[in-house]
Amino acid sequence: MSLYKIRQKNPLIHCITNTVVTNFTANGLLAIGASPVMSDEPLDVEDMTSISDALLINIGTLNKNSVEAMFLAGKKANELNIPVVLDPVGAGATKYRKEVSENLLREIKFDLIRCNAGELAAIAGIDWQAKGVDSGEGEMDIVLVAKDTAKKFGTMVAVSGKEDVVTDGEWILFVRGGHEWMTQVTGTGCLLSAICAGALCLEGDRLENIRNVLADYKKVAEFASKEKYLGSFQVEIINGLHQISRGEL
Amino acid sequence: MSLYKIRQKNPLIHCITNTVVTNFTANGLLAIGASPVMSDEPLDVEDMTSISDALLINIGTLNKNSVEAMFLAGKKANELNIPVVLDPVGAGATKYRKEVSENLLREIKFDLIRCNAGELAAIAGIDWQAKGVDSGEGEMDIVLVAKDTAKKFGTMVAVSGKEDVVTDGEWILFVRGGHEWMTQVTGTGCLLSAICAGALCLEGDRLENIRNVLADYKKVAEFASKEKYLGSFQVEIINGLHQISRGEL
Amino acid sequence: MSLYKIRQKNPLIHCITNTVVTNFTANGLLAIGASPVMSDEPLDVEDMTSISDALLINIGTLNKNSVEAMFLAGKKANELNIPVVLDPVGAGATKYRKEVSENLLREIKFDLIRCNAGELAAIAGIDWQAKGVDSGEGEMDIVLVAKDTAKKFGTMVAVSGKEDVVTDGEWILFVRGGHEWMTQVTGTGCLLSAICAGALCLEGDRLENIRNVLADYKKVAEFASKEKYLGSFQVEIINGLHQISRGEL
Repeated sequence: MSLYKIRQKNPLIHCITNTVVTNFTANGLLAIGASPVMSDEPLDVEDMTSISDALLINIGTLNKNSVEAMFLAGKKANELNIPVVLDPVGAGATKYRKEVSENLLREIKFDLIRCNAGELAAIAGIDWQAKGVDSGEGEMDIVLVAKDTAKKFGTMVAVSGKEDVVTDGEWILFVRGGHEWMTQVTGTGCLLSAICAGALCLEGDRLENIRNVLADYKKVAEFASKEKYLGSFQVEIINGLHQISRGEL
Repeated sequence: MSLYKIRQKNPLIHCITNTVVTNFTANGLLAIGASPVMSDEPLDVEDMTSISDALLINIGTLNKNSVEAMFLAGKKANELNIPVVLDPVGAGATKYRKEVSENLLREIKFDLIRCNAGELAAIAGIDWQAKGVDSGEGEMDIVLVAKDTAKKFGTMVAVSGKEDVVTDGEWILFVRGGHEWMTQVTGTGCLLSAICAGALCLEGDRLENIRNVLADYKKVAEFASKEKYLGSFQVEIINGLHQISRGEL
Repeated sequence: MSLYKIRQKNPLIHCITNTVVTNFTANGLLAIGASPVMSDEPLDVEDMTSISDALLINIGTLNKNSVEAMFLAGKKANELNIPVVLDPVGAGATKYRKEVSENLLREIKFDLIRCNAGELAAIAGIDWQAKGVDSGEGEMDIVLVAKDTAKKFGTMVAVSGKEDVVTDGEWILFVRGGHEWMTQVTGTGCLLSAICAGALCLEGDRLENIRNVLADYKKVAEFASKEKYLGSFQVEIINGLHQISRGEL
């Protein structure tokens, strides 16, 4: 029911995100009744964050200019007590992404890190075989590492996978279900991070709100999987988000 | 019937637009038989504008580099008598966007400003509660402000809303209809601005050509609203544009 | 059957591509079972290319920063024997694009140039009336020019059109079929270039692998053309790629 609550609230989400998923993220947020705004220019972001209800920082196609904007926006959000989500896309893939992620985590207080197992491993400094921006494979006790990471950075951590794990360093919640095709449509994780930013604007228990969003998202994936092929599946993700956030699914 | 006429003409539209809507804008222009071209690098834009039939400047995700390109392209267009449209996305949301809009309007002669009420208010210097890049709410006599703005900058002004207003500072035309979901798919306004750039390439009365495009667009929205959810609605916008521009809707 | 083979291989494709087609390219690659990764920041690309199976360089919305990244990534790919595809989008449209294309071809060894007739003419220095990033019109013996260009740069050349031509400078293969609407959905050529990068990771005769990919792509276009309008046609391209790469079409 969290997506329904986001629609009631209509939060404005400032997204500094990657060029692959801007459109899908904006349409996904609109489908659940949130208002997206995109800006990644240092001269522009502080004003934009200031009028927003939440901020998303996603490093998927970072460049020097947008990285500068991420720091400015993140600090402004912290100053104004606006919740911030980090999506450390591909943090394990390159040195630059790892450094940027570490510096962001050092200088900005995040309310949530939303990532996959490979990105969690990178942030936690654990050996892992990531594949580009995909999760990849390795040996790690995800629950333990997520919990430690949450404690270390004073944030919630949500790790997407067959079974999602979300923790505030103390409590751990699990969400099962969903559909594997979600990994075969670009930007589903990025959109989920943006939606989680919306969930941070809700009242009530923050960890439960995130868990409920993850559960709704898995339900949307199951709904969309009635389609036989990925092009239509992608359209149905937006349809499903629209439907569930109106209390109809 | 203006979309049909654009298809006959097949104009090349140089779009300097935001990263959220590039794909939707290009596919929307292609669906009505226009040819989109995108370029926002200062070293590249003057040549690109020179071979184009019209230029669109959209500040939705502006950065220092693309802003420089906007000025170069706009001046080149003025020099060569190529029509130019301004879409001042979120002009009321940040100081930087407001400044860039003002400077663009000072240094470049636009043929059309296509915006929402909040953006019009920002350009006209009127108090208004914009919400990010959404229209927002406030008290303003839209018709009067649009007319004054048109006179002041020697341009046509088209303000989208439940009822669209288009004026050249002298005459005022209204277009009713459409569907509220158009505000819930990202880039519908941005695409409309690009299509209006195409309409500036047509012969006949310029104000009427814009009005006819706005009317066609509202018809497309109504056509698409046969769908129950936003994912399919989005697909039907392109289908509707394709259909109406072939004289079939 | 080449798309089927790409799915078996699941190659990681580093795409430096334009902002119009990032989403469509990523979803198209995912639909055939390849893994896309996007990065165009000089500080990031060498690491990203190093872990990839192939590199795509597409100049569709180049800027000074991404052009620097193209050279760094291309040289790293050459150093590590990772195959590289060039898609010289709009090379004939502006001086800057022509220069960048020429410099890329001088400093980087490409395995494949995938282009349209207008772009081939630009690279070969032949007079041609390109229309923005569209193919345009002119007089040229495409087969001869493609063959000469392949020889000159020691690369394969694939020229898309009603009849595709692919050559390694020695052998020439043709592919007929497809559907004209493929030119009316943005990014179909760009996606094809990315898929060809995937084909360069396959074993067997390289020229034949490319030819087979082109043939599969034309089959997908024919499949999608069962739709009456471009919005649905676009969705069916992804559906068709998904289907054919699973051996079902």
